[in-house]
Amino acid sequence: MSCVFCEIVAGDAPAIRVYEDDAHLAFLDIRPMVRGHTLVIPKAHSVDMTDTPAQTLAGMMAIGQRVALAARASGLHADGSNLVINDGKAAFQTVFHIHLHVAPRRRGDKLSFAKGVLLRRDPDRERHGRLLREAIEGL
Amino acid sequence: MSCVFCEIVAGDAPAIRVYEDDAHLAFLDIRPMVRGHTLVIPKAHSVDMTDTPAQTLAGMMAIGQRVALAARASGLHADGSNLVINDGKAAFQTVFHIHLHVAPRRRGDKLSFAKGVLLRRDPDRERHGRLLREAIEGL
Repeated sequence: MSCVFCEIVAGDAPAIRVYEDDAHLAFLDIRPMVRGHTLVIPKAHSVDMTDTPAQTLAGMMAIGQRVALAARASGLHADGSNLVINDGKAAFQTVFHIHLHVAPRRRGDKLSFAKGVLLRRDPDRERHGRLLREAIEGL
Repeated sequence: MSCVFCEIVAGDAPAIRVYEDDAHLAFLDIRPMVRGHTLVIPKAHSVDMTDTPAQTLAGMMAIGQRVALAARASGLHADGSNLVINDGKAAFQTVFHIHLHVAPRRRGDKLSFAKGVLLRRDPDRERHGRLLREAIEGL
């Protein structure tokens, strides 16, 4: 069974990468709810809360925190972030390689957030990925 | 400045507790979106991603994972969970003591989930808290 996130890790599927280390990869969600909507994954494949080691979750959260801080510091001018793991199909998980969503938010963005949840597109992903990548490097 | 979650930790404010250890407390959200909607907090006060140590986030996630697994094993019959940290007022954070939401989900619950997001009430919290508490003990 193929896994699109494992393909991204291997470099066999495209992604706008914002952070990478030996064990983790962070890249932009292809259907973003907000600008800079990032997914943090462990490179080692696991599915959900039932098979992911707590140590792996800890590592994902540490990267998620860096992305959230970078979003504040970046040209995205975020004031906060939603950090979300959808654990299981019943909880809206659609790719069965565990991932942490980091959705940068701005004060007063509720209407554009609601719109983003419906539309899930961003015509300027390359630029927003670059802003995040630079901010993470500068933390 | 008073903090209602610090008051719960101290035993000065009521809560339906589902798990506790030296560093963490998990209790039911007073305005639940779903049955068994649990908040995991560190006992030590911090606010959001800007001041919470990565080590603390790791501990919160480890407890959140236990709650998510317990929800599956429990009489709540969950098939998954949403695990969410709202980091900052712009991201819907309303209590400024960092907390991880664990919202147990069931297959086909989208309509009742949407209803729960609007109503945020559960007339049987005591029972649902007990089901979770027992399942966590039995993991």
